Amino acid sequence: MSPVERIEKLLNPRSIAIVGASQAANKLAGQLIPALREGGYEGEIYPVNPRYEEVAGLRCHPSVAAIPGEVDHCVIVVGKERVPQVLEDCRAKRVPGASIYTSGYAEASADGRQAQRMLEDLARDMTFIGPNCMGFSNLAARVMAAPSAVLKRARGVGDVALISQSGGLAYATIAYFAQRDGLGFSHIVNTGNSAGVSYGDLVEYLFQDAATRVVLAVTESERAACEVIDAVRRLGLRKPVVLLKLGRGQTGTRMALSHTGSLAGDYRLVRDVAEQHGIVCASDADDALGLCELLRHGYSAAHAEGIASLCISGGNITLFADQADARGLRFAELAPATEARLAEVLPDYISVHNPIDITALGYENPGLHADVLNVLLTDPAVRTVVPILTTLDDYTEVSRLLAGVRANTGCDMIALWSGGAYETQSREILRQAGIPIFHSATLLANCLDRLRRAAGRRPAAASQPAQPSADAGAPARAMREGEAMQWLQARGVAVPALRACPRGELAAAARELGYPLVIKADSTQTHISDQDGVILNIRDDEGLAQAMARVADWAGDEVLALRYLPGHELVAGTFAHPQLGLVLMVGSGGQWVELLKDVRFVALPASTQELAEALASTLVGRALQSRFRGAQGYDEAVQLLERLGDAAVQAGAAVTQIELNPVTVGRHGAAAVDAAIYLRA
Amino acid sequence: MSPVERIEKLLNPRSIAIVGASQAANKLAGQLIPALREGGYEGEIYPVNPRYEEVAGLRCHPSVAAIPGEVDHCVIVVGKERVPQVLEDCRAKRVPGASIYTSGYAEASADGRQAQRMLEDLARDMTFIGPNCMGFSNLAARVMAAPSAVLKRARGVGDVALISQSGGLAYATIAYFAQRDGLGFSHIVNTGNSAGVSYGDLVEYLFQDAATRVVLAVTESERAACEVIDAVRRLGLRKPVVLLKLGRGQTGTRMALSHTGSLAGDYRLVRDVAEQHGIVCASDADDALGLCELLRHGYSAAHAEGIASLCISGGNITLFADQADARGLRFAELAPATEARLAEVLPDYISVHNPIDITALGYENPGLHADVLNVLLTDPAVRTVVPILTTLDDYTEVSRLLAGVRANTGCDMIALWSGGAYETQSREILRQAGIPIFHSATLLANCLDRLRRAAGRRPAAASQPAQPSADAGAPARAMREGEAMQWLQARGVAVPALRACPRGELAAAARELGYPLVIKADSTQTHISDQDGVILNIRDDEGLAQAMARVADWAGDEVLALRYLPGHELVAGTFAHPQLGLVLMVGSGGQWVELLKDVRFVALPASTQELAEALASTLVGRALQSRFRGAQGYDEAVQLLERLGDAAVQAGAAVTQIELNPVTVGRHGAAAVDAAIYLRA
Repeated sequence: MSPVERIEKLLNPRSIAIVGASQAANKLAGQLIPALREGGYEGEIYPVNPRYEEVAGLRCHPSVAAIPGEVDHCVIVVGKERVPQVLEDCRAKRVPGASIYTSGYAEASADGRQAQRMLEDLARDMTFIGPNCMGFSNLAARVMAAPSAVLKRARGVGDVALISQSGGLAYATIAYFAQRDGLGFSHIVNTGNSAGVSYGDLVEYLFQDAATRVVLAVTESERAACEVIDAVRRLGLRKPVVLLKLGRGQTGTRMALSHTGSLAGDYRLVRDVAEQHGIVCASDADDALGLCELLRHGYSAAHAEGIASLCISGGNITLFADQADARGLRFAELAPATEARLAEVLPDYISVHNPIDITALGYENPGLHADVLNVLLTDPAVRTVVPILTTLDDYTEVSRLLAGVRANTGCDMIALWSGGAYETQSREILRQAGIPIFHSATLLANCLDRLRRAAGRRPAAASQPAQPSADAGAPARAMREGEAMQWLQARGVAVPALRACPRGELAAAARELGYPLVIKADSTQTHISDQDGVILNIRDDEGLAQAMARVADWAGDEVLALRYLPGHELVAGTFAHPQLGLVLMVGSGGQWVELLKDVRFVALPASTQELAEALASTLVGRALQSRFRGAQGYDEAVQLLERLGDAAVQAGAAVTQIELNPVTVGRHGAAAVDAAIYLRA
Repeated sequence: MSPVERIEKLLNPRSIAIVGASQAANKLAGQLIPALREGGYEGEIYPVNPRYEEVAGLRCHPSVAAIPGEVDHCVIVVGKERVPQVLEDCRAKRVPGASIYTSGYAEASADGRQAQRMLEDLARDMTFIGPNCMGFSNLAARVMAAPSAVLKRARGVGDVALISQSGGLAYATIAYFAQRDGLGFSHIVNTGNSAGVSYGDLVEYLFQDAATRVVLAVTESERAACEVIDAVRRLGLRKPVVLLKLGRGQTGTRMALSHTGSLAGDYRLVRDVAEQHGIVCASDADDALGLCELLRHGYSAAHAEGIASLCISGGNITLFADQADARGLRFAELAPATEARLAEVLPDYISVHNPIDITALGYENPGLHADVLNVLLTDPAVRTVVPILTTLDDYTEVSRLLAGVRANTGCDMIALWSGGAYETQSREILRQAGIPIFHSATLLANCLDRLRRAAGRRPAAASQPAQPSADAGAPARAMREGEAMQWLQARGVAVPALRACPRGELAAAARELGYPLVIKADSTQTHISDQDGVILNIRDDEGLAQAMARVADWAGDEVLALRYLPGHELVAGTFAHPQLGLVLMVGSGGQWVELLKDVRFVALPASTQELAEALASTLVGRALQSRFRGAQGYDEAVQLLERLGDAAVQAGAAVTQIELNPVTVGRHGAAAVDAAIYLRA
């Protein structure tokens, strides 16, 4: 069976055994059969527990082996010591799937990690979720194999599939707030320690699942997050994916070099690469749900530009505009013709500048909402309209008008309802009309910003990781810097004119190169500038003589003379991430790179546009691109990144890491003036 | 009468005339008398409208003049053309207070601004709110002189006073969400265009109002925000104040110099100075209400450190920890003794590291919540405990346990309820126990962060603005840079050794100073480095000769020779803000200061500690303070800021602006290597 078929069977079983079934209503194990039944499950249910004859009115079996019929799925809620026997019984009976609730494994201790490895071995032929999980609910097929206070009350099926390592976040938090907001799920799958079915396979399954329109993946481990990214790289972004990655300081220690290590050592690496592939990244339950709501209505990065808004309250408009401006979202600049037509429907004293404060007039004359929207929607710059509602006793009239505008024009409309009503019809009218509702200007602006940051879909299979990177953690050998410079030069990555030589030949090398010069120890160390191993800006013979006197004190004999090319400073590098493969880093460079943390990550291979966008989204890149105060060399910097990426891809596993800090950018173009390259040992 | 007495009379009138009273229930004017009556108003109500004999069962008077009794407050809801006559009638009858609802004034047009000036003149003897406002509600005294769908349903009195220029935000948004969250108000005052009573006087009134515990000020104009700050400077922070300033790009064009202008030209200036005086700054209705809830329970900046948390869901803990970490909030590091005691109440497999995942065990054994909290609270590092709840059918048992811990220990406890319950008792139990409830990890972390940024209370009257600054916008004359350098030096602000001289004397000046040198045109222009007016790092006679050749091409004859003092670069300056008086700016400097926007503002006079904190909260300041990679000169940089602030204060109105960019900081200490000073013309 393919992974998709195996997961189909896992989540849509014709029969379920509850191993560890209980009569106690206050225990998870006692709530499973009622949950299944109340949820409308129509397959066979087999309670298993040697202590009972009967559970929930069903005959209770002493063991899995004793069940007469075929079992598609075992829900295992027994003590840890009994799990191995249950799994062996499952194997003997060829049970294909399981949810292992039992905890005390890798999440708990070193012993637990060992026990989990045994469990993985025993369950190697099964498709399973857990251990330490709270089961799954296939709401589309009415298989509610999870006990949850929320799900008991939420029978409604929706089109968002939620996969989560955390059961609490999935069932108690996200499902609760979703229920409050009227958002429904097709599936909720809680994978716990994720020892079984992978996030990649789940995403692949959900991409082809007819009931699912949007995938929301909540991950605690970086591995699971990378599996989501990898699935999208393999398969293309077949449906919108929202990633909520928890735990944001995990990767740092793996990287060999200090700059790259400390910079990659947080959530940004995962987020940047996810966004590069069109995955939208959330940071809390609130924005995760807001994003799902926008995505299931077809909203995308394009909707974060060309916003038009109106409200009867100027204060509410200003508040939304503040939040949008702070994130660089753009309000549509209306054409003069549009403003002229607005002036026809509005009295003189109302400004026709978008966003539009229709004042209390919109309270006395609700029709103004529709009149203004209809004019706004004739403007080609308007992409998304955001009517802002506040609080009325009864919003049904305004809601019907908004629904009417949407029905007539097919426009993309989001209601920012900064307040409420004292009836429930309005909410339903807006929902029926396909208008997402937000109650916080900050949250809406955040969600549009997150959408904007996720790049367009990339074609399926166009972006396989550049190399298998299983040995990313293997020990590495550093090149001498002179060797590194020559390696780069040979691959078209610009470096200064240079000579690597013993100390005794330095004077001759200097004369060949010409002034101004830099001299440094040709070493395998980084940060040598902290240790007086670099002499910058030697401009004449006298300066060279002084430099030679200092060089005489250096420990090694090998020195490097380079032309001095000052300029604006970038940091750039590549490294092999254990899951994501080769990744390029670029950002504001120089001595304080770790403090500024103004870097972006791009998975390789990457297009010129992706590299240019990454560069332009950093402070230095923005300055270069906009030629701020005469800054030069942007195009050359992009070209350097391209060549660097190509060199790393061609080198493959032989090179584990490259770091150029700084790359100087200026009149000379762009050049790596400091380079460290690590080879696989 | 003092401002406080006048406002007391305005907001607590014994009799109210409704001028423009109406029978129509769908008009604001028709809703006022029912609102007053239903709200429990016990004073006299006089409808005024020549078109009616009777309104709402009361005799209707043709004019204010025709009212037989005394009138304390006139609510004016007539057309704009009738307002002058009404105000003249009020004057004749000596009506002391008014709410002017009528719109079409300064908010609408140039004509409206003119009309508002007339209105201000006519009402000069009255204390009034408006025009373009929606009245006030003195909930504590049951004077509901405002029509609002929300207030109709919210009779509960609370202890937060809300003053807002925006009626929509106050009545429809903030009051609605407050009602949802169980937060009540003592007053809601909507000042509209704020032509009458000032925010400063309102704050002063509320500071002495017995019903008010927290003041929430929502402002659209920078003037009103500065009035709040000024009141706190005058009076001290007598009660917690939350400021929500809308509209965030207003001040830029006023400043003469490009750097300071573009950097001060947004909300940060107001926010920094507000926070310097202990005012907590919000950015949306959500965090404004969250902050009010924390402040009314006595929470302060201190509570953002020493957080301890527990939850049955590891995912929810990680989510909160992520959000806290991202904002630099600190979880308490538990003492070994505390961890040992935790190990006694928790099974082996649960980590005793704060925050604590008590796992599903806390579901089966709710008492664990209290046991763990009681141990945590013995640790001196624990300042604030944050139990995280998720979703249960019934949370009453856990809520009672939490309430019990708080009652027994008096601890500061915030419930992060990332989910909900299917009963309403738990919420009430927590509220009665004085435990604020948050439903979003992001919102709670945001609010704690905002609290943290508001400095401690400064003693009343210790921080009067350093100078009256009514003429801040007056034209200014720039000093030549040489003159500016000498001015600074005379006041103890470190500058490089220098000579200002005509071109012909440059060689002699250079020899006096010694190498390395900088030569620049001694000009009144800034940004001369963009125009080849600066030659850096001249290191010998040959370099000087080359420089002299370039200097020969410069336009002016006056040049400046300075010792070259490279180092890390700050920008620092002072300027006179029209309301806030003298303000000092400090931040990361150099060529890209406008792009980086890493600056802080401090109102003068300021303590050494305030200046040091401002510096240390910038990127460069942080690097200097932590001696990052050997950085030197932090103490000298703080001293330079002190001297700069003193110099500006002593110069008073004579100097309108000082900008030092960069100040270099390094082995030499700190020195202003580029200076511009503007004098009052």
